[in-house]
Amino acid sequence: MSKQLEDFSKWYIETIQKADLMDYTPVRGCIAFKPDGYEIWEHIQEEMDRRFKETGHRNAYFPMLIPESFFQKEKDHIEGFSPELPWVTEAAGEPLEERLALRPTSETMIGHLYSNWIKSYRDLPVLINQWANVFRWEKKTLPFIRTSEFLWQEGHTAHVDEEDARQETMQMLEIYKEVVEQVLAIPVYDGQKTPSERFAGAVDTYSIEAMMKNGKAVQAGTSHYLGTKFAEAFNIKYLTKANKHDYVHTTSWGTSTRLIGSVIMVHGDEQGLVLPPRIAPTQVVLIPVGPWKKNPQIIEQLDEIFGALKAKGIRVCLDDSDQSPGFKFNEWELKGVPLRVELGPRDLDNNQAQLKARDEADKQAIELANIVTAIEQELTTMQTRLLEKARQFREANAYTHIESLAQLQQHIKAAKENSTIPGWVLAGWCGENACEEQVKEETKYTSRNIPFNPPITKPTCIGCGYKAKHTVWFAQAY
Amino acid sequence: MSKQLEDFSKWYIETIQKADLMDYTPVRGCIAFKPDGYEIWEHIQEEMDRRFKETGHRNAYFPMLIPESFFQKEKDHIEGFSPELPWVTEAAGEPLEERLALRPTSETMIGHLYSNWIKSYRDLPVLINQWANVFRWEKKTLPFIRTSEFLWQEGHTAHVDEEDARQETMQMLEIYKEVVEQVLAIPVYDGQKTPSERFAGAVDTYSIEAMMKNGKAVQAGTSHYLGTKFAEAFNIKYLTKANKHDYVHTTSWGTSTRLIGSVIMVHGDEQGLVLPPRIAPTQVVLIPVGPWKKNPQIIEQLDEIFGALKAKGIRVCLDDSDQSPGFKFNEWELKGVPLRVELGPRDLDNNQAQLKARDEADKQAIELANIVTAIEQELTTMQTRLLEKARQFREANAYTHIESLAQLQQHIKAAKENSTIPGWVLAGWCGENACEEQVKEETKYTSRNIPFNPPITKPTCIGCGYKAKHTVWFAQAY
Repeated sequence: MSKQLEDFSKWYIETIQKADLMDYTPVRGCIAFKPDGYEIWEHIQEEMDRRFKETGHRNAYFPMLIPESFFQKEKDHIEGFSPELPWVTEAAGEPLEERLALRPTSETMIGHLYSNWIKSYRDLPVLINQWANVFRWEKKTLPFIRTSEFLWQEGHTAHVDEEDARQETMQMLEIYKEVVEQVLAIPVYDGQKTPSERFAGAVDTYSIEAMMKNGKAVQAGTSHYLGTKFAEAFNIKYLTKANKHDYVHTTSWGTSTRLIGSVIMVHGDEQGLVLPPRIAPTQVVLIPVGPWKKNPQIIEQLDEIFGALKAKGIRVCLDDSDQSPGFKFNEWELKGVPLRVELGPRDLDNNQAQLKARDEADKQAIELANIVTAIEQELTTMQTRLLEKARQFREANAYTHIESLAQLQQHIKAAKENSTIPGWVLAGWCGENACEEQVKEETKYTSRNIPFNPPITKPTCIGCGYKAKHTVWFAQAY
Repeated sequence: MSKQLEDFSKWYIETIQKADLMDYTPVRGCIAFKPDGYEIWEHIQEEMDRRFKETGHRNAYFPMLIPESFFQKEKDHIEGFSPELPWVTEAAGEPLEERLALRPTSETMIGHLYSNWIKSYRDLPVLINQWANVFRWEKKTLPFIRTSEFLWQEGHTAHVDEEDARQETMQMLEIYKEVVEQVLAIPVYDGQKTPSERFAGAVDTYSIEAMMKNGKAVQAGTSHYLGTKFAEAFNIKYLTKANKHDYVHTTSWGTSTRLIGSVIMVHGDEQGLVLPPRIAPTQVVLIPVGPWKKNPQIIEQLDEIFGALKAKGIRVCLDDSDQSPGFKFNEWELKGVPLRVELGPRDLDNNQAQLKARDEADKQAIELANIVTAIEQELTTMQTRLLEKARQFREANAYTHIESLAQLQQHIKAAKENSTIPGWVLAGWCGENACEEQVKEETKYTSRNIPFNPPITKPTCIGCGYKAKHTVWFAQAY
């Protein structure tokens, strides 16, 4: 087993700290996002936000504090969230008449407001997104993956009918899949959550699920069809074309800064981060090597490359500090910078530079005349390659041959003995909560989702052995 | 006196609600930013953020919750902010050991972290900005201008010495001035705050001050030189080149969503909003007029203009709804859309369209072949014109002839009797707090700032009549 996998949590924490992505703070479970960590989020935001706007959504901002009475209005919602809420009870030296929760999500506040904003079918659909901080006071936290305060976007839409709302729910899931696969280079399975894993208050929850390098799953995004549940709780009615009063159908959908954690756990290796070019704060680092200080042409040449890359909008850094090349290589590898260009006296004599991709073992010698084009190409190639590597890793660690709970237990045991990853397991499921519960209790595997496109269909339930209704991904999850 | 000025607050509230910028919420002093309101903020953010990055700053994100003990560390800071803090006292069903404040600003949390992040002169300067929500539980609130929760950016930088930190303080004030004048078309006076108006914990505070249409002042941005006060409170020391341990010098600077309110109060008129083109969510609206439904060429022509404007990145809307042209004109004027293009059968016969700028009385007939170019030009011209109009308004309502408190009182009384605006008053000040206090008590005028470039220099103190040390803008302020 690789050193990375021997103690994956330790590797993860050390890596994100060394790479300067975050720091702990004295507030339980709250981290500081340092510039290199936050910039990854900014690139994710740009990509998401553009797609939201292209599909007709607009941003808005709602109050962070939510009156306690709002939570009471949707029974499932309060049950799901109340164990995790922090409360403001006093302000400006006086106790509040009603406690105010720090939002864990905004369905209730937005439901209240939509009931005022929506009057007629002419007002629909309402397509609004919010970028915001949210709070869930969880017992076990892990930087980026699960923190007491995190950053996210939450879409909240209202529609004339179920069909329109369900179409929106699926559209947003597809956008999430596209960004996570194409921009973060993380392959995902899209599918439907089982009832026990649904969002508190949803009729149906859909998710995209990603496999980390230790075989655990991360729910990378969710999209919910909420039916008329929040419309009924908050009385969001509209006048139909037929002049009747009907409840709207609502959706909500979210992705969060846990995507940063996922990128690290999917692509990182023993040398540190490996960042996909599209979200890397620095995409290319230029490093002079050999006795470069005696040869001013080397820095001149690198300056020229630097300028040419900048002009093309590539995020480039020229490291002309006094450290040794070896030290610099380590530093920039740790930070996961996709491409490194080395230039020394011998390279210059040969009219070439060395190009090294973070995820590949070998350097390529590139003619100086072609270096900018080669870098541009390699950034694109690497982006695709990282997705492909992650896909291969996932296929190698997603098992489809398991038919029963006994076989799953055996599989997990064998993995432990052989120091391999037990990974994900595709299994049949009869649809009964009890069977899912049994799997969880005995193996810590939970249902991730019912994939839209499973590699194969499983005929028997992993719990009871009776006929399966669904084919489900099971995995240990963050 | 215009209807707008008769009851300016009423006009303001009605205007922002009719224009769909915001809504009240059940949480005291917290508003919802609706899409048209939030998009103004997004455009301000883009313009600010780009300039921050061009000057070497990077974004980060810090916890919103701040332990009570952090506030105790800087005496002036806690005195200034503690009356306004909301507190989290319980979370996940249990009381907290230490109360956590919702941040009113982040000097303390960031000070704590910088003391870990900064070790050596090599780490300096630290140039970090944060986009975040903040809380100040104020007694009197006004949408956008003063709300319990608001959105802002706060820059926090650390430097080797006073010179470097002061240079940063001034640089950021200049960036604020540039954005507010060039993008929001609001002329400002930049200058230094008097000690009584300083940020709690600052050595020196600088501000840009803007005049609203009712003559009141809004502090549109502030930049603080904090000296070593927070460095001492949080022990932020670094190893100098000379191998000594020294305190860093820090700065902080901020602008907030009150800029949205300022835009409305500076440019709005009785018909509603007037938005500068650079921040308007919709920059141009195309409206078919006359019997346009019988003449499909009209919509075809407008579609073509729509496409051409879109392609140029202009935010354009084609209003082909069933309402009457008059109704539409009103609606879009209310929303402050900078330019309106009308096209009817007669226009089409003459190969022209009518172009109307929101702030001008007359339409211009423009040849259809030139319409796109004319729109582009008019957007630029209007941007400059709005700044110029606001500047003229300010010059007309900024008084420099007042020498004494008695004269100021007489001036205010006369304004009331003549139904004019008392506006701003440039006055001499001896530097004593008592004189400032006296002006405030007797006239509600407070010192806005000591402008870097006053129109004239005033020789005698408005309070005591002795020799003035400074020339100060006094005004009623939001």
